[in-house]
Amino acid sequence: MTPLLLALGPARSLGLPAPTAGSSATLDILVGLFILLLAAKVGEEIFRRLGQPGVIGELAGGFVVGPYALGLVVPGETATVLSEIGVVILLFAVGLEIKTDELLQVGRPAAVTAVLGVIFPIAAGAGYALVTGQPPATAAFVGLALAATSIGITSRVLTELGVLERRFARIIIGAAVIDDVLALILIGIVSGAAEGDLGIATLGLIVGAVGFVVLGFAAARRARGLRREVFTWPLFTDTPLVLAFLLMLGLAILAAYIGLAAIIGAFVAGLIVAETEAQDEIEHEIKPLASIFTPFFFAVTGAQLDLAALADPKLALAALLLAALGIATKVLAGVIGAHGTGRWSALAVGVGMAPRGEVGIVVVTLGLSLGLLTSSLFSVVLVAVVLTTVAAPILLNLVIPRAAAETEAAAAPSPAPASG
Amino acid sequence: MTPLLLALGPARSLGLPAPTAGSSATLDILVGLFILLLAAKVGEEIFRRLGQPGVIGELAGGFVVGPYALGLVVPGETATVLSEIGVVILLFAVGLEIKTDELLQVGRPAAVTAVLGVIFPIAAGAGYALVTGQPPATAAFVGLALAATSIGITSRVLTELGVLERRFARIIIGAAVIDDVLALILIGIVSGAAEGDLGIATLGLIVGAVGFVVLGFAAARRARGLRREVFTWPLFTDTPLVLAFLLMLGLAILAAYIGLAAIIGAFVAGLIVAETEAQDEIEHEIKPLASIFTPFFFAVTGAQLDLAALADPKLALAALLLAALGIATKVLAGVIGAHGTGRWSALAVGVGMAPRGEVGIVVVTLGLSLGLLTSSLFSVVLVAVVLTTVAAPILLNLVIPRAAAETEAAAAPSPAPASG
Repeated sequence: MTPLLLALGPARSLGLPAPTAGSSATLDILVGLFILLLAAKVGEEIFRRLGQPGVIGELAGGFVVGPYALGLVVPGETATVLSEIGVVILLFAVGLEIKTDELLQVGRPAAVTAVLGVIFPIAAGAGYALVTGQPPATAAFVGLALAATSIGITSRVLTELGVLERRFARIIIGAAVIDDVLALILIGIVSGAAEGDLGIATLGLIVGAVGFVVLGFAAARRARGLRREVFTWPLFTDTPLVLAFLLMLGLAILAAYIGLAAIIGAFVAGLIVAETEAQDEIEHEIKPLASIFTPFFFAVTGAQLDLAALADPKLALAALLLAALGIATKVLAGVIGAHGTGRWSALAVGVGMAPRGEVGIVVVTLGLSLGLLTSSLFSVVLVAVVLTTVAAPILLNLVIPRAAAETEAAAAPSPAPASG
Repeated sequence: MTPLLLALGPARSLGLPAPTAGSSATLDILVGLFILLLAAKVGEEIFRRLGQPGVIGELAGGFVVGPYALGLVVPGETATVLSEIGVVILLFAVGLEIKTDELLQVGRPAAVTAVLGVIFPIAAGAGYALVTGQPPATAAFVGLALAATSIGITSRVLTELGVLERRFARIIIGAAVIDDVLALILIGIVSGAAEGDLGIATLGLIVGAVGFVVLGFAAARRARGLRREVFTWPLFTDTPLVLAFLLMLGLAILAAYIGLAAIIGAFVAGLIVAETEAQDEIEHEIKPLASIFTPFFFAVTGAQLDLAALADPKLALAALLLAALGIATKVLAGVIGAHGTGRWSALAVGVGMAPRGEVGIVVVTLGLSLGLLTSSLFSVVLVAVVLTTVAAPILLNLVIPRAAAETEAAAAPSPAPASG
């Protein structure tokens, strides 16, 4: 039993050695977390007062106090874990608001958007790399890095603007899930091929990833109408939240072990709970957790932005070009895939798919470790990935209000049903 | 920007090096947190079904999966920080349910209980050390280690049994705050004296500790009736929770810097919010956070129990004796200090003050680092501190129902006010 609480002031103020390093470190970490949360919220306040998305403010707040600006906080193990839990809770909350029926209704546009949204960026990224004289294996990695959408930031913007129940929002989310599975499979194949080893492991990966999503979806269908008591039968559960939280964390971990993003598991957990009778209550109770945890995700992301990489004009130009290609190809995929939903809605789907994140970063890191990417190409792709993430909410903020107005206008002309 | 999510499965399942150590470590930590939370809840379930306090089950659950039993989890930095935040939220929630008026009403019994509850254990602990042949400086440290009550576990039991609004509960909480200030001052004086340096630093410590509690109390008095808008004026606050959380964390950190326990700061923050009009809403929203965070406090505490120290019969006997002295002296202080509240209530106050925790551990660690405690005496005091913590909820579970019945019986004979 080491010190449980922070009572180290006397030892330190008296000039004595701190009794245990652990507890003193704990206080420093708490201070860092406090600064990150405060910076995220001050940033959000400033950006919202300027009429910009709050999430950009949280990113900016994290950047300002982070190591590449003021240097007040260097996010360590705990901040990283809290940010993971934050985005896991965010996607769980998104899943909670979606019924599987609604996902099935957008199955076709979501699938088309996802498939094209993987093919186009890979072609563009690989093409760019080949044109600039890279070997095919390297080009494959650059293309792959642009393939997978990171749905975290888009989810937050959709939630912030209150449009999560719109059809275009459903398409984005469905497409992002399919997209993640496709990207995972392609990464397995490409990295297996790069090592000259395309066998059982790759097959296992495909089966695991597809199986997880399919079984999760099936579980959500089976969960329909399950009574609240499913989550409250143990004595320890005053509320259904604790069991739901364990389900969320457990599926997130399982998804990560399979090789999917942890947030896919959290989203599936949300889908399952959404079908039960405990949905309302759990949705209500997850909100306070989300309000404390998710700012860490965006603040930690912001704190990791190294804008110094943009100081070299040649690299900066390359990164901008690649980011523009990355955004344009996803937009094109969305416009084609969701064309039936209206002009602005289809554009919103495309822009919503634009942010890349963790998967892109994993891919380039893998390429670097395999010796297929030079360090400068690595930086270029990394910055391009970050730029897609930062640009998306700004673009979404322009497109979504128009998409929302469009769907309302489409709904308005239909005559009100005659009473009686 | 390093990997934000856990998408490392492919790299690992393909036998490639994990792209980044950080992200793989993050998954391991999430698994550890999941196991700790699950173990705490399974433990609570078992103990509650056996009619025992749930908190003992959480401690036991943590112990079972921890390094001194199954070894599934070794709580690291993140688990420790989550456990700190857990107990900070716990004491904030306790403060939220208490009005300063109610604390002032129990001022006298709380003060007497606190003062006697510091004097008696110091005398007993120091006496024990002197009798067993320790030098006076060592004896002072052993005594001091038994001085300060750790209110976390008692708060949880009071909450669990739904008696937080009873007079005896108020006395315990008021006494624990005063007790913490007294103990901090004494630690400053003794460790200053041990170093032959009793000067400005010690004085600063006393002024800081007393000043913090007095100013915090005054702030709570001034906060009375503050409107909800005080917590919702920024655009980022959909609910008052975020600002209240920042206040809680900020005061906890400030208290820790002064040298008080962080939970004293959190309690003061709770007292302040309790007087405002946002109290109801924040109390409602802090509950989901408490239900997820506080189990980590008890599970991590349980995981740090090294029962191997009890294998040596001589040390075990010494620890048991010291623990018994520690409990008996606090009970005596409570029985005297709260004698006006009824027999069982006074006993409940005494037992409620019995658990020691962080401060006792800091004191013995300090004594060890100053060369005043041998390693075996260190272990004995440490185990005694842990035993008081484990014994208290079991005793409280016996005493509190009787104390509650007693106060109801005392209230019952008074005739109902005539209507009109």
